[in-house]
Amino acid sequence: DPMPTSFLGSALRGTFFLIFGLWWSVRYPLKYLRQRGSAESQPSYGENKGDFSALCPGILAEQFVPAGPHLQLYSSTTHSWTDLTHWHYTTIYLFFLLSGIVDVVSHSPLKLPLGLDRLSLAVALFIEGESPAVGGTGDAALDQHVHSLLAMAIFAGALCALLEVFLRDHIILQTFRTSSFLLQGSWLWQIGFVLSPPWGGPGWDQTDRSNLTFLTMCFCWHYAGALAVLAANSAASRWYVGERGPSQHSAGMAKNNTQT
Amino acid sequence: DPMPTSFLGSALRGTFFLIFGLWWSVRYPLKYLRQRGSAESQPSYGENKGDFSALCPGILAEQFVPAGPHLQLYSSTTHSWTDLTHWHYTTIYLFFLLSGIVDVVSHSPLKLPLGLDRLSLAVALFIEGESPAVGGTGDAALDQHVHSLLAMAIFAGALCALLEVFLRDHIILQTFRTSSFLLQGSWLWQIGFVLSPPWGGPGWDQTDRSNLTFLTMCFCWHYAGALAVLAANSAASRWYVGERGPSQHSAGMAKNNTQT
Amino acid sequence: DPMPTSFLGSALRGTFFLIFGLWWSVRYPLKYLRQRGSAESQPSYGENKGDFSALCPGILAEQFVPAGPHLQLYSSTTHSWTDLTHWHYTTIYLFFLLSGIVDVVSHSPLKLPLGLDRLSLAVALFIEGESPAVGGTGDAALDQHVHSLLAMAIFAGALCALLEVFLRDHIILQTFRTSSFLLQGSWLWQIGFVLSPPWGGPGWDQTDRSNLTFLTMCFCWHYAGALAVLAANSAASRWYVGERGPSQHSAGMAKNNTQT
Amino acid sequence: DPMPTSFLGSALRGTFFLIFGLWWSVRYPLKYLRQRGSAESQPSYGENKGDFSALCPGILAEQFVPAGPHLQLYSSTTHSWTDLTHWHYTTIYLFFLLSGIVDVVSHSPLKLPLGLDRLSLAVALFIEGESPAVGGTGDAALDQHVHSLLAMAIFAGALCALLEVFLRDHIILQTFRTSSFLLQGSWLWQIGFVLSPPWGGPGWDQTDRSNLTFLTMCFCWHYAGALAVLAANSAASRWYVGERGPSQHSAGMAKNNTQT
Repeated sequence: DPMPTSFLGSALRGTFFLIFGLWWSVRYPLKYLRQRGSAESQPSYGENKGDFSALCPGILAEQFVPAGPHLQLYSSTTHSWTDLTHWHYTTIYLFFLLSGIVDVVSHSPLKLPLGLDRLSLAVALFIEGESPAVGGTGDAALDQHVHSLLAMAIFAGALCALLEVFLRDHIILQTFRTSSFLLQGSWLWQIGFVLSPPWGGPGWDQTDRSNLTFLTMCFCWHYAGALAVLAANSAASRWYVGERGPSQHSAGMAKNNTQT
Repeated sequence: DPMPTSFLGSALRGTFFLIFGLWWSVRYPLKYLRQRGSAESQPSYGENKGDFSALCPGILAEQFVPAGPHLQLYSSTTHSWTDLTHWHYTTIYLFFLLSGIVDVVSHSPLKLPLGLDRLSLAVALFIEGESPAVGGTGDAALDQHVHSLLAMAIFAGALCALLEVFLRDHIILQTFRTSSFLLQGSWLWQIGFVLSPPWGGPGWDQTDRSNLTFLTMCFCWHYAGALAVLAANSAASRWYVGERGPSQHSAGMAKNNTQT
Repeated sequence: DPMPTSFLGSALRGTFFLIFGLWWSVRYPLKYLRQRGSAESQPSYGENKGDFSALCPGILAEQFVPAGPHLQLYSSTTHSWTDLTHWHYTTIYLFFLLSGIVDVVSHSPLKLPLGLDRLSLAVALFIEGESPAVGGTGDAALDQHVHSLLAMAIFAGALCALLEVFLRDHIILQTFRTSSFLLQGSWLWQIGFVLSPPWGGPGWDQTDRSNLTFLTMCFCWHYAGALAVLAANSAASRWYVGERGPSQHSAGMAKNNTQT
Repeated sequence: DPMPTSFLGSALRGTFFLIFGLWWSVRYPLKYLRQRGSAESQPSYGENKGDFSALCPGILAEQFVPAGPHLQLYSSTTHSWTDLTHWHYTTIYLFFLLSGIVDVVSHSPLKLPLGLDRLSLAVALFIEGESPAVGGTGDAALDQHVHSLLAMAIFAGALCALLEVFLRDHIILQTFRTSSFLLQGSWLWQIGFVLSPPWGGPGWDQTDRSNLTFLTMCFCWHYAGALAVLAANSAASRWYVGERGPSQHSAGMAKNNTQT
């Protein structure tokens, strides 16, 4: 098996996607409610600017954890490639970083065409989904099954980001993309527990076929959980905006309009 | 074979989808004809509110039929998962129920973004189509074949619901979704008869390849039947509206407008 | 092999699709040029009304050719299904016929929603493409390969018809659909020559892999031929309209407008 | 193995696609910046006219290189097809040539419907992607893997061109199509180095599975490189337009408007 799954790696990557999902699950409802409140509807430019700055630590972590490749690609002692899982994730993070850079540059005076940020996000997700580090690495049926479920979550997010190139600031698409990130994050944790439990031991029985059907159902429950988190955060955003009121925001905006 | 098909289970699920299909096959033509009659075209909010309330009995039935799991997921006596088919359908109904809840909440004063009800319906259908309880459970070719035909009907409905997120109140899409539900319902009955006939016995010969080609054709005839039902109900709706007249409806509406 | 390919059957079906392709390759350019000439652009209703009336003879031929099933589905003497290929094509023609009926009814005073005719055409093509009579019936690689190329042509046409539900009277889509019908028709002839040559004999060598790669290239040449036919017919239409002139047509229309 | 990969063939084809990619990576940003500068937005007609004239030499080269078929399709001495790889590429180039001809004719006074040039480009790319000369020819896993990655790049470009039929002059789509051509071109070079290195020798080890995962990552790096080239050329175009100024261009245009 050239690409073993470690619990720590899986959990760290899961946390990364969970953080994005949680951040978006607050940001998009707030933005939607404010726009509806103040009847403005111009297309938004790069408000994600800080979002992907969390990626540089991620890249460094993938390379320099004790089991990582330390930027070494080919081991001359064993005449073979080093463990490529970390390299794959470095590549994936690189594309996410690129997506973040495109977003920041879109925001700068040097305006890029609208939609390039979503396209680069979609490309990053497609590359993640196609990566052999994601799409089932071992030969065991269980391993391949949990990874193919992961790939499904990733591709759903990628297709959604692709649609957003053409249908910008569509609240349904933003909600779905957020839910796909939450699902991906929590499923990466699940993969860690299934294939290499933190308390040691060999993981679940790879030969028992009923484990496969159970995990498929478990995937659905993860998605139900992601939707519950999404609903809770939306409700909180709605309460927060209702409390402070869109009126204040509108008032502030009116003030700005007067001043300019 | 970890997930045997029982005739009763298959027939109950089929009836569930048939009821939805029949209900929609009357509702959508009526709505379309009235809208055309009275020249109003505002997007509709959650008129399905009662639709999915039939799901709670469905969930209870899946859990508490004599052969059901009675909310027990892991059997500690045999150290294995209980029969997961019922759990899978419980999960699927849960997502349909969620779709119904989204629909009701869209209808409430707490307005949700338009299209979220269709997205949740599409998610429920995708989850149903991906479920191992649907997508061919046994190893026999015949079993897998009838289930893959079922999955095709489900995915067609899911894609249609997904399109409706963006093209709301499109009569063609509503008609196609209705026909896919009717097809799914009647095909679930057919699966029951093929794999576990109610008069007992072993079902059709799993090794005869000409059964496969016959059943594919049979699937087309089921769809033709679904279209015939659809056409008949549309014609009846048209006759009913023509009889009572859209004028009355418009008159009633004008009256309402005067009163308010 | 439960579904042998006969040269006559393949050629007859090919001719059927070729006739449609040729008819459309004249009709659509003429309509496009006239519309451009007279600046009218209302959506068109069911001008295909006579198109599918050619299907009833097709259905009869499939049933009552000497080798056909003569409406018999199950042979009680051999206790097995009769040759299902003819039954499959009867079913396929039935859906094409349905599509024709929808088209005629759309045209009648009893107006159906626009796009239903295209949807029914798309359904007929999907059913044809999924049919085991089309999608590779034998076990031999060559047989499966030529049939999978055929299925590709059919699905391309089906997707195109599906798009036309939403983008009606789009000249590019009409052109592509026409080319897919011409390709399908000429490829059915090719299949007849490859699998069961009219001069008898066993057909091409099923085990030679270079036959597969040659036939793939051959398929491209068929498409190039279809495009050439399309271009020639478009040019002839243009010459014909230029000769008689759109002005006459406009004049006639103006006259009608004056009279009404 | 009926279709061996030669380094020279692979490199020549790669160069062909690289040239197109590079040419477009300069042309589209320039056009976009000028249009934005001068606020004109009429749809563009066939400015690619000279683009595909480079194809005739390509076709001649495929046929008349020393190892080529010299227009001979069937070898009567060995009673088998000649090496079909060259014939396949001749066919592919033929469709690209057709796409170029459609483009030139669109530009001529004999106006074709808009979008036909993009449709013909999409058809050419689909035919390339489906060609057995592209889609994995040998039985070895490595061979099939690098070719399936190539096919992915080709289909991405084809889908993009297909979208452009409906969304014409969309800068994001043009950028993505350009990047897919650059990727395809540089990957064809990579295939040449992997399967038949120019310094002779047997190519990479076909049995080592870690080569597969490395090459997938390598494919991502090629794409990152393609994006870097694209960004550099866009920046250069921007600098060039900023230097000479859209104002000059507008002035020139204003002058033209006055004269006419």
